[in-house]
Amino acid sequence: MAKQSGHFLERMFHPDSIAIIGASATNPEAGWVGQLIDFGFGYRGEIYPINPKATEIHGLKSYANVRDVPGPVEYAIFNIPARSTIQAMEDCAAKGVKFVHVYTAGFSEIGTPEAKQMEAQLGEIAKKAGIRMIGPNCMGIYCPESGMTFNPDFSKERGHVAFVSQSGAESMRLVFLMQDVNISFSKVVSYGNAIDLDAPDFLEYLADDDETRVIACYIEGIHDGPRFITAVKRCLAKKPVIVLKAGLTESGAGAAASHTASLTGSKSIWEAFFRQTGAVPANTMDEVADIVQGFLRMKEPNGRRVAVVGRGGGIGVIAADICERAGLKVPPFAPETRQKLAAIIPEAGAGVRNPVETTRGLGGAADFYQRGLPLVDDDPQTDIILIHMAIDVYGGHTPNLAQSTSEAANSLCAKAASLKKPIAAALFAGGHPDTILAIVAARDKLTKAGIPVYSGVESASRSINKLVNYYEFARNKA
Amino acid sequence: MAKQSGHFLERMFHPDSIAIIGASATNPEAGWVGQLIDFGFGYRGEIYPINPKATEIHGLKSYANVRDVPGPVEYAIFNIPARSTIQAMEDCAAKGVKFVHVYTAGFSEIGTPEAKQMEAQLGEIAKKAGIRMIGPNCMGIYCPESGMTFNPDFSKERGHVAFVSQSGAESMRLVFLMQDVNISFSKVVSYGNAIDLDAPDFLEYLADDDETRVIACYIEGIHDGPRFITAVKRCLAKKPVIVLKAGLTESGAGAAASHTASLTGSKSIWEAFFRQTGAVPANTMDEVADIVQGFLRMKEPNGRRVAVVGRGGGIGVIAADICERAGLKVPPFAPETRQKLAAIIPEAGAGVRNPVETTRGLGGAADFYQRGLPLVDDDPQTDIILIHMAIDVYGGHTPNLAQSTSEAANSLCAKAASLKKPIAAALFAGGHPDTILAIVAARDKLTKAGIPVYSGVESASRSINKLVNYYEFARNKA
Repeated sequence: MAKQSGHFLERMFHPDSIAIIGASATNPEAGWVGQLIDFGFGYRGEIYPINPKATEIHGLKSYANVRDVPGPVEYAIFNIPARSTIQAMEDCAAKGVKFVHVYTAGFSEIGTPEAKQMEAQLGEIAKKAGIRMIGPNCMGIYCPESGMTFNPDFSKERGHVAFVSQSGAESMRLVFLMQDVNISFSKVVSYGNAIDLDAPDFLEYLADDDETRVIACYIEGIHDGPRFITAVKRCLAKKPVIVLKAGLTESGAGAAASHTASLTGSKSIWEAFFRQTGAVPANTMDEVADIVQGFLRMKEPNGRRVAVVGRGGGIGVIAADICERAGLKVPPFAPETRQKLAAIIPEAGAGVRNPVETTRGLGGAADFYQRGLPLVDDDPQTDIILIHMAIDVYGGHTPNLAQSTSEAANSLCAKAASLKKPIAAALFAGGHPDTILAIVAARDKLTKAGIPVYSGVESASRSINKLVNYYEFARNKA
Repeated sequence: MAKQSGHFLERMFHPDSIAIIGASATNPEAGWVGQLIDFGFGYRGEIYPINPKATEIHGLKSYANVRDVPGPVEYAIFNIPARSTIQAMEDCAAKGVKFVHVYTAGFSEIGTPEAKQMEAQLGEIAKKAGIRMIGPNCMGIYCPESGMTFNPDFSKERGHVAFVSQSGAESMRLVFLMQDVNISFSKVVSYGNAIDLDAPDFLEYLADDDETRVIACYIEGIHDGPRFITAVKRCLAKKPVIVLKAGLTESGAGAAASHTASLTGSKSIWEAFFRQTGAVPANTMDEVADIVQGFLRMKEPNGRRVAVVGRGGGIGVIAADICERAGLKVPPFAPETRQKLAAIIPEAGAGVRNPVETTRGLGGAADFYQRGLPLVDDDPQTDIILIHMAIDVYGGHTPNLAQSTSEAANSLCAKAASLKKPIAAALFAGGHPDTILAIVAARDKLTKAGIPVYSGVESASRSINKLVNYYEFARNKA
């Protein structure tokens, strides 16, 4: 049962039936059929394997041609060589298929006249038949709600992030990055060469999709600039849109041309786009993930003044520099805040000006979160609390590190919900397995408690700055 | 037996005897005495615990006062409250101690007139007695060669990196960051408030120290600018010097004032310093570690043109953008290189222009390192090879990930030594424990084979750019 919605793509993300044209008979578990079964699509829709050499695949009846399927086919996936796609599209047209995802690569992105011509022909057949197409050269749809996926390791949990990605590998990368901080998706689409459906189509749909609270995009090139801007603005009226525009340098533009045959557009045009729309720019997929975390987990900050809390004086100075370089400020706390902090941190040399230094290792940090964070929260000179934990400095590779890190995380989780200011945590270490696993466990705790966790002060402050910019833009517009 | 050297600090890093004034009698293993014993200082020098309440500490005879020690005391560590340091310095003067490390904090950095006055007095007594002092408010010396350390988790292995750090926690952080990529130190000194020995003293010593091939500095403020510049230049005539100058922003300068009582100096003065000397600037401790790796493990590049190798088209476009933003270039390979690459990567859609896309997961990557890297190495249009592996995209969280990552790393290790161009590897993932542990194991292999490993394309390209700048400066000067 698909949800009812006014937008035609609602049916594409929730089809009643899917045909896999070129379903693998030799290793079906690892292929499209196995993934759809595993993700539960079969509980709500029909799965039709199409393979002229098989009669049954993964327990399902297999057909030689999509035309042979007895019932209607709403959505088809092309898992076949490029040379076979023209005939398959003709078959889909004859069958009355509504949506086709051309997974197959080897079209305009390889640059030969033959490949370009074949791509154009594929588009023509689809257009004439009224078929809407994703691709070619892309991963298609991941939608936990409907049981659609293109990777068996994706989570089955429904979430509130949508990702519109021209790149297949990057779409997987963001899903994994988000899963690792306990964030799930509403819809992901990898759309490749975009000869029919393009970023604006997906954005128009997602603007009104109530399941989606934050939208991320990976874009190499767009075919219709004004339509893209209109679609982004429509989304931004309701929710944040993060855009990783790849290919903005000479080196990157060259790479994009041979990846998705994209014309990447000039840097100045894209800078104007960000300035005028308020879309949130990102340069790497890690940054996209960081910004998504901020939007989902941080309250709207009143300003850009950061209170920095953590162990170590030098790291505090570096952190203050990093914050200011990122566009934030680390001003001194109000005198009364400093007095109160000094009363609970009597150690000589520990800073209470901002940054505030927690002392006595992770135990001291755990204690500070209980007694000190409320004081920082009440400080009138700061808007955001950034907590850093350099796990390897808190006692190095000591045997009780996992437990003391866990206890510090528990203390922060227990206090965080009562704070008025938005908070964020930067957990980092070198690469010793013990410290890394301690961080992974602590991050799991913190993110499950709704605290955004970053891999360092640099990534945290960069992401917080973009958040602040977004809210400032929205307030100025209002 | 200490080494012979012309510089007076040679004796400080290799003293014949160390007194710990305020040696802990209750938990000696975890304290200075235990660390010195564990690090083998006792095999080559005398350790004298000083504590009026003990007669024996950790198996060593303890003395009530440093004056009571029968033999000479060359080096003393103050592990006592600030209020007791004046008397202890008088005792050291009377005893004829040559070097004192004042670990104790609570001096000028806390900003009270009493603390400042006490610090000045401490300095006066030392000066009058001819005692050279490290500190106060610092960790002192780590020198694996002589068996001195301030952290029990530091490696006992001797290496070729020196670190001169005003911050104690940052000095530990860099040691751990480097240990995790199999790099050891010649000498580390954390020198805090620097009322006597300051960065220029240590740099002058390290310039001629044959054990030291790369010098890193963490500086908040300096007392004598011209002397610092002269010392840095003297080092740079022989080896690279990386400087993390903290407190260059308004936020950071305020933080530094309350950390080590430093006047941080203006941004423009420091920019001129870097421009004129060729010292390598760094903004975070991770970046310092990255740059150190580059200097120790990468050949001198002929230029700044990078060949990017890895899986995924989108990530290649992002990587090209990142490289160019960092100051590098990712130009197209020469036509003959592209032809040869296309012949070994027949997959449709895989880029061979630069970046070059390896296909078929980690197995395909392992294969490409054998057959493709020599082609990239021969390309006349590029100077440096940057290999990226997004481990989570190579098959996600699959059960054989550890093995296939390991095999890919083995393949790269086997090929790397025969390449003419400098190479670097960026290994990264989200935060799933399986992918992280696969990365840790692969990084261990690669770094042991002498390949520098970075946490991402961003950190790799940033660090490579600084390396290229350093060598360009040196060539232009020559």
